[in-house]
Amino acid sequence: MVLEYVGANYAGWQYQINALSIQEVVETALGKMLAMESRVTASGRTDAGVHAIYQPASVDVNTRMTDAEILKGLNSLLPKDIVVKELETAPPGFSVIRSAKEKTYRYTILNSPIRSAMDHGRVWWIINPLDLEAMTEGAKALLGEHDFTSFRSASCTAGNPVRSLKRLEIKAEGAKLYLEFTANGFLKQMVRNLVGTLVFVGLGKIKAVGVAEILEAKDRRMAGPCAPPEGLCLMDVVY
Amino acid sequence: MVLEYVGANYAGWQYQINALSIQEVVETALGKMLAMESRVTASGRTDAGVHAIYQPASVDVNTRMTDAEILKGLNSLLPKDIVVKELETAPPGFSVIRSAKEKTYRYTILNSPIRSAMDHGRVWWIINPLDLEAMTEGAKALLGEHDFTSFRSASCTAGNPVRSLKRLEIKAEGAKLYLEFTANGFLKQMVRNLVGTLVFVGLGKIKAVGVAEILEAKDRRMAGPCAPPEGLCLMDVVY
Repeated sequence: MVLEYVGANYAGWQYQINALSIQEVVETALGKMLAMESRVTASGRTDAGVHAIYQPASVDVNTRMTDAEILKGLNSLLPKDIVVKELETAPPGFSVIRSAKEKTYRYTILNSPIRSAMDHGRVWWIINPLDLEAMTEGAKALLGEHDFTSFRSASCTAGNPVRSLKRLEIKAEGAKLYLEFTANGFLKQMVRNLVGTLVFVGLGKIKAVGVAEILEAKDRRMAGPCAPPEGLCLMDVVY
Repeated sequence: MVLEYVGANYAGWQYQINALSIQEVVETALGKMLAMESRVTASGRTDAGVHAIYQPASVDVNTRMTDAEILKGLNSLLPKDIVVKELETAPPGFSVIRSAKEKTYRYTILNSPIRSAMDHGRVWWIINPLDLEAMTEGAKALLGEHDFTSFRSASCTAGNPVRSLKRLEIKAEGAKLYLEFTANGFLKQMVRNLVGTLVFVGLGKIKAVGVAEILEAKDRRMAGPCAPPEGLCLMDVVY
């Protein structure tokens, strides 16, 4: 199934004991509909507050209901900030995690002296003007296959820190800045750490040429801050 | 001042005894900052649930604070879903209501079998496919100066029901449909009643040629239903 959700009201994708996760809400709805316990797996975890326009997830079910019936039933049970957009039977051997070839995230910044009411909770509001040219220049060093150790969370447990960043586009639209990242995969908080670093470049706190050095250092302490979760949205996963 | 707000949590613009209005929230923030009671007037009332990207409002204040100081102070006191975008001293004789020359509203429809999580509260979700061509055809009869009695709320108290609709554009963008209305002014619930009628045309419940007849009849019972407030947004007011 493909899920869309607003992350604001949840402690992220993954099940947690003391907080409500998107996984738990989806599993509860499925359990209610199919009268069985089920474990739903997503293509990747999203952090608390992070949104998804396209989050693939899979589940093993034993039912006589058609895909269309499950889709309709599930959406009637899910809250307004979570929806199943598509649903189909997976081919044999399909793994929603391991079969993923490419993921795209978008990060949205509001670069304006005034905050936005309509976009609250969907953007990182930055008052000081960002130097878009410097950010675009700094971004170049990140493209391609690299060890992204400098940009992964201290708690990241991935065995291999090498990822291939295929696309990093920075687009301005009015006061909004969209940073789009496409890679074969992302380390924990990698996008948010990349955004925080590029924002520091845009603010003149890190030089554009410094991005290559940060990458080279393989040291999280060299990079910029972790950008807040509400600007981040999982946009696509290709299989 | 120019306000932006998300209507979801408020009983509309205008002050009410038993419910929280945007007007009350803005007046309370102003009162706290300036230590005085004040009455804030908007260019027009918006109904409960209706949003505004650009809602001009005026207030008489007696202060030594600069415009920039008022702007900053007010926004720090306002909740996240209300913001003052601009603020300036009005010229003598200015009336935020009577000096308005032209207003633009946008109504957003999500025409899709599946609801949206990200757009919840910002769109009217319509499952059955809308005939865009028929809607565009039906819209033509509405352009220009007309007595819009058929499209005003039963509780509308305007003395003159004649308004000049200068622009009515219907644009499709993916599963979204944007209906933009520009007029010298609007009667109570006029945009929502026009949208409800055009949606009935799009669903084949009213013929495109029937819109002219509804207008002619000057009878609210002839028109389609009042579209829900959450799809409506005040976009611009020209002085």
